[in-house]
Amino acid sequence: MLVLITYDVNTETAAGKTRLRKVAKQCVNYGTRVQNSVFECIVDNAQCVMLKAVLKDLIDVNVDSLRFYYLGNKHDTKVEHFGVEKGVNVEKPLIF
Amino acid sequence: MLVLITYDVNTETAAGKTRLRKVAKQCVNYGTRVQNSVFECIVDNAQCVMLKAVLKDLIDVNVDSLRFYYLGNKHDTKVEHFGVEKGVNVEKPLIF
Repeated sequence: MLVLITYDVNTETAAGKTRLRKVAKQCVNYGTRVQNSVFECIVDNAQCVMLKAVLKDLIDVNVDSLRFYYLGNKHDTKVEHFGVEKGVNVEKPLIF
Repeated sequence: MLVLITYDVNTETAAGKTRLRKVAKQCVNYGTRVQNSVFECIVDNAQCVMLKAVLKDLIDVNVDSLRFYYLGNKHDTKVEHFGVEKGVNVEKPLIF
């Protein structure tokens, strides 16, 4: 299923930047960084539980905000993009 | 239906900050700013088309990125939050 993860963190501090980098590192194991702090991850239920636990450990719950949106398996028509692109669709094959 | 709007803009420039402010102003007409550049809007199809047109006009398509996620009408179980809260659920009554 597609899980959208949005992470609000103050990147004006070095610690905030580091936390964003760590969160991004975990998320890109399962998908794409579509915006600076927005990640689209393709996970099954077990992976989702694991990823959630890891991310909750990485963030500072007193200042950061982390949101998960569950978009299910049929998500092709549920997303629309405008402006500059960031990231690649991990489910589509890369053709060279 | 719930439409999630995520907006990636460089807020280190004054122009970027202004664009974010303008996008936020439009989005909060229909919902909540749940993170600094993430908005949850409750709209019908016509409102959605209109909001999309307005936002596309506000952003700089050469540097910004704007994404729409369509979460439908049954969205209560599709969202999970951790960390500090931002915003209020516009569909829930405010009790004083």
